[in-house]
Amino acid sequence: MSFARFFAPAAGVPGDRILLPVDEAEHLTRVLRLSTGDRVRVFNGRGAEFEAVVDAADRDGVRLTLGAPCTPAPEPRVAITLAQAALKGDKMDDVVRDAVMIGVAAILPVVTARTEISVAALTRSRRRERWERIAVSSAKQCGRAVVPLIAEPSQFDLHVALSESTFPSPVFVLVEPNMAGGVPLGELDTTTIPARATLVVGPEGGWTADEVHAASALGSLITLGGRTLRADATALVALAALFTKYGEY
Amino acid sequence: MSFARFFAPAAGVPGDRILLPVDEAEHLTRVLRLSTGDRVRVFNGRGAEFEAVVDAADRDGVRLTLGAPCTPAPEPRVAITLAQAALKGDKMDDVVRDAVMIGVAAILPVVTARTEISVAALTRSRRRERWERIAVSSAKQCGRAVVPLIAEPSQFDLHVALSESTFPSPVFVLVEPNMAGGVPLGELDTTTIPARATLVVGPEGGWTADEVHAASALGSLITLGGRTLRADATALVALAALFTKYGEY
Repeated sequence: MSFARFFAPAAGVPGDRILLPVDEAEHLTRVLRLSTGDRVRVFNGRGAEFEAVVDAADRDGVRLTLGAPCTPAPEPRVAITLAQAALKGDKMDDVVRDAVMIGVAAILPVVTARTEISVAALTRSRRRERWERIAVSSAKQCGRAVVPLIAEPSQFDLHVALSESTFPSPVFVLVEPNMAGGVPLGELDTTTIPARATLVVGPEGGWTADEVHAASALGSLITLGGRTLRADATALVALAALFTKYGEY
Repeated sequence: MSFARFFAPAAGVPGDRILLPVDEAEHLTRVLRLSTGDRVRVFNGRGAEFEAVVDAADRDGVRLTLGAPCTPAPEPRVAITLAQAALKGDKMDDVVRDAVMIGVAAILPVVTARTEISVAALTRSRRRERWERIAVSSAKQCGRAVVPLIAEPSQFDLHVALSESTFPSPVFVLVEPNMAGGVPLGELDTTTIPARATLVVGPEGGWTADEVHAASALGSLITLGGRTLRADATALVALAALFTKYGEY
């Protein structure tokens, strides 16, 4: 039998008595209708997961006592950071959900030359907090005990990003089919599997020539077959391909 | 500059004068507001694409004259058939859209032991026609000139399917992480690239033990990492992984 899973950043060691975050407490009581005495699992977002029992579920919140550690879904061997140009409307929500599901280590929302929303607008609409909630929800569903970092949205400047090591090497920049300089992922040497890597995915309108030029000096320009992928499905396909190349599947 | 693309099954050779299907004519006139003299492209769904000029766009429909052949997005080297258990609600729509986008050759909607909708209900609600429209729409967007076959939904019986060769070999049946008998895709020998292959993906509730037993005698049971994938994203991830293994990317 499988137990409902909840995100509890306070979870540390067996025996801890912890309070669930408000959102998680609502999920436990209102959606799943669990209460005192019920058994669940909690994960702390940093890789640890525990059995737990509900001690109290009332207007003061949900209190749990942690039991034995248990084994969450494994993390991929390669910690991939996804730098994704913010997409229009709800599409970025789907990218965050899917990237967490497939196993990214971190998501850096970036604003490129052709991105149709500004850093200021993303910040004002508190989009990062929204994506963090989506990341928690996706981690709950896919079985991970890690909630990937969602960085504050930032202006895309590959030179700055690399000099500050916010983009772990090797860096792969996905470009449109037939773009000059782009090579199929399969032609890259992936016999050495790195500990970390970065995948950079552009916006609906693609990259400018200047951006591609900058990127080509700092990482590999890769293509993914000759068909045009929907912007909100591109990262998932590219991540699946990269994980496959790195022997994850 | 890129031209709008329309699906015209009647398109045969340069010089042909053809009538667009009603749905496509509406797209041309009402959505894109094109009319007499405008240049477009048409593809016939069987791999051929042509330049074309609108001769007339009125209440009798849209008539075009075909010009020179042009090159659509390339088809994958391996023609993959996706046998997908019908999913609930609109989720199957997304699977069809994404599978066409990534490049499948055909989609066989199947009803398994744990599929929550019957063949009769799928037929009564004319779901196949809906999926065919979605396949056309996706082909238009991704640049393919091939509209994959969508088969009539059928009861899943792997023995019958294989004896009748409706599932081209080799057959890969995706099973949940940690299921006995499942091997990571990476452990399969894919040095020989076949002309065709079949990927079989189950429903939200997974396979029964009987189904897995039958499948294991007839194809490879494969897993895709340890994280649980959303049912409506599973086929896309598996197809991306399989195309990567076969050197498509």
